[in-house]
Amino acid sequence: MTNRILMFLLVLSIPSFAQKKDKTWRYLFNGKDLSGWKQVNGKAPYAVENGMIVGTTVAESPNSFLATEELFGDFIFEVEFKMDDGTNSGVQFRSEQRPEDGKVFGYQLDIDPTPRKWCGGIYDESRRQWLYPLEYNVAAKNAYKNQLWNTIRIEAIGSNMRTWINGIPCANIVDDMTPKGFIALQVHSINDAKDAGKKVWFKNIRIKTENLQASPIDNIFQLNLLPNKITEQEKANGIVLLWDGKTTEGWRGAYKDKFPEAGWEIKDGTLSVVKSDGAESRNGGDIVSNNEYAAFDLQFEFKLTEGANSGVKYFVTEKENNQGSAIGLEFQILDDDKHPDAKMGVVGNRTLSSLYDLIPAAKNPRGIKKIGEWNQGRVIVYPDNRVEHWLNGYKVIEYTRGNNIFKALVARSKYADWQNFGMAEQGRILLQDHGDKVSFRSIKIKILK
Amino acid sequence: MTNRILMFLLVLSIPSFAQKKDKTWRYLFNGKDLSGWKQVNGKAPYAVENGMIVGTTVAESPNSFLATEELFGDFIFEVEFKMDDGTNSGVQFRSEQRPEDGKVFGYQLDIDPTPRKWCGGIYDESRRQWLYPLEYNVAAKNAYKNQLWNTIRIEAIGSNMRTWINGIPCANIVDDMTPKGFIALQVHSINDAKDAGKKVWFKNIRIKTENLQASPIDNIFQLNLLPNKITEQEKANGIVLLWDGKTTEGWRGAYKDKFPEAGWEIKDGTLSVVKSDGAESRNGGDIVSNNEYAAFDLQFEFKLTEGANSGVKYFVTEKENNQGSAIGLEFQILDDDKHPDAKMGVVGNRTLSSLYDLIPAAKNPRGIKKIGEWNQGRVIVYPDNRVEHWLNGYKVIEYTRGNNIFKALVARSKYADWQNFGMAEQGRILLQDHGDKVSFRSIKIKILK
Repeated sequence: MTNRILMFLLVLSIPSFAQKKDKTWRYLFNGKDLSGWKQVNGKAPYAVENGMIVGTTVAESPNSFLATEELFGDFIFEVEFKMDDGTNSGVQFRSEQRPEDGKVFGYQLDIDPTPRKWCGGIYDESRRQWLYPLEYNVAAKNAYKNQLWNTIRIEAIGSNMRTWINGIPCANIVDDMTPKGFIALQVHSINDAKDAGKKVWFKNIRIKTENLQASPIDNIFQLNLLPNKITEQEKANGIVLLWDGKTTEGWRGAYKDKFPEAGWEIKDGTLSVVKSDGAESRNGGDIVSNNEYAAFDLQFEFKLTEGANSGVKYFVTEKENNQGSAIGLEFQILDDDKHPDAKMGVVGNRTLSSLYDLIPAAKNPRGIKKIGEWNQGRVIVYPDNRVEHWLNGYKVIEYTRGNNIFKALVARSKYADWQNFGMAEQGRILLQDHGDKVSFRSIKIKILK
Repeated sequence: MTNRILMFLLVLSIPSFAQKKDKTWRYLFNGKDLSGWKQVNGKAPYAVENGMIVGTTVAESPNSFLATEELFGDFIFEVEFKMDDGTNSGVQFRSEQRPEDGKVFGYQLDIDPTPRKWCGGIYDESRRQWLYPLEYNVAAKNAYKNQLWNTIRIEAIGSNMRTWINGIPCANIVDDMTPKGFIALQVHSINDAKDAGKKVWFKNIRIKTENLQASPIDNIFQLNLLPNKITEQEKANGIVLLWDGKTTEGWRGAYKDKFPEAGWEIKDGTLSVVKSDGAESRNGGDIVSNNEYAAFDLQFEFKLTEGANSGVKYFVTEKENNQGSAIGLEFQILDDDKHPDAKMGVVGNRTLSSLYDLIPAAKNPRGIKKIGEWNQGRVIVYPDNRVEHWLNGYKVIEYTRGNNIFKALVARSKYADWQNFGMAEQGRILLQDHGDKVSFRSIKIKILK
């Protein structure tokens, strides 16, 4: 590089005026003391040093939080954040304390620089746990810079909550569980006393609460927990409801012309199998989508009752003219603890979210919900025939429809005798009636090309 | 950008002197006519236009070649090359014509811009077919720029032949089948008359034949066809002989202290199972490497006799104390046409190069050799437990040892009852005695970390 260019670049890097506080923001920390803040949990000390809030990990303390005294509903929040290596932090928002013991709960932008790299994901502290692990948005896994300053941004406007780290969109959820609460800076508990003394730094803590302009819609995955609703972002990304939340429209009985007269119930935005005798497809029978799908991203919420069995099948063509449940690849739905089918098949390949009788789901224990809670299921079939099963934010299965491994699995399964099993170019989505009460809602699909 | 910088960059882009021919090269084409060249096959016309040789595809012609009259043994060759979209070309070297019909055969740097992207690979025209498809070196798949000028380089020095496109190393073989021959410019035959009239351009065709300096050793895969030899490049990349080509050193009988007294023969650089009754591990019995391996890249050449059966197993620990062949993951070696085991198992998972009884090899028909010809086998186990089987330059199997799919396959295989099958942290390499004559040579291994 010539000296002339070097000079030019040096000049560019010198700011022409001292940095000033941006007047469109309101600063929540005065740079001098902790006025307006209160420690609500834990024993980790928070101090003010050089215009920054500094938290320090301590042994034998639960998670510590320094919370705003003021509560915030809709806002855009930013902070500059830095942390020592090997610890964990986060920013609570729309959060509260449990009346009985004062424990903090609610949404948290998590700073979790472990190898899974979920910094910027949304964790529901002391409540539903992980809502938006970055498996939903792997492109964001490298947004956080360890041991360096990071700019964190949270937009909470209406039911939509979105996070960014260093300008990279990380998480996006739609949820209405808690519309308002404090903002709090976390110092995580430590398991090992040798990790005491690690520091987290926060500076330029700022918020806007008026005339809020949401960032433009993007194309990262949005976890929408509002039942049977399509958001603007989902609409913009080609996601449509496969069930309207109210009627039988778009569905019919498998091997039938019409929706079953009985055996299925639509009530309060849920579509449920009516409990009968636990047998396969004998009461109302399975239902299938009117439309067929080739490559798609299918989302659905489901809720089990004790001991229940059901399933979501795909690439169902009804060409087999078989008795019982129509043939297709199946995302298994099962109470693994109470239903005997969980112990059948091999190595767990009939358990919840498995590819039924073929591939056992590699489930993360934190992705398993209690019976009676809603689960997020997802099946993605890419145009090149890679297929994924997801359960509650975790990818549990990945396979390639039709490759040599798939063929070997099918040939030694209960599907061995069905010609061309699972290989239809397109097929219907099926919800299984296995005689047990299982409920569905928020069934959505996006066609992939 | 300021005008000053723009000016500076413009100045940089203007060469300070006109391009001259490099005097260290000898130019094989005079830029005016085809003196020194002769068309040896095909009807595609070759013309001289603007200092370039231009070939044009024609219907109803076999592959056409414009060859040097002079023969070249050791050389470094370069040419600038451009081609219309949707056709195929290449540069023959150390090539000859068959006495009986004049057909050109020998090494070819192939220009094959189909989706598999094998431009720069080495094809053995009208002889052994693909020697070095770019599956061996996927990093080179984007070296060739379609419809643009490309610089092609071939180094043929001693038994080593290496290719580059635009400075990117593509192929590297070691072979002594033909040490000398002509260089020839190919216009490929066409299957469809509508593809007639497509052009290929060659210019600045240049060669060095004296004081040759080979390019430095690099780390791309080298296909070394010299039996039981380790080249400098292989040595530099950590590849060692697992069998020395002469003695029983480094090997012993499975479940035995010593190498079998009988049942195996070492002769002319090959290690062969002596034919007995076709039963499993009863005559000399299997042999295993003295050393155990965790992650590795194993290469071996093998040759079948009619109806023969053998195998190369890995992660063999001899902890099962079983009768018959010691337990391990097996790269199957079989005469698929004549041995009945090819029809057993399911979907071909006992055929040549399959993961025995688990995953059928997805074999490319062009990667299947005649019985009696040497095959290149390869098993790669990466440190993260991804495993690949290769046969004659094609990856035929890819799986992950220990994942949910692997467990499901094992649970419904002949290995179902072996605890922890295939999951040893490290194990021996085993060559199987199945009572049929099968020969091995060039057994090499590289430890991966």
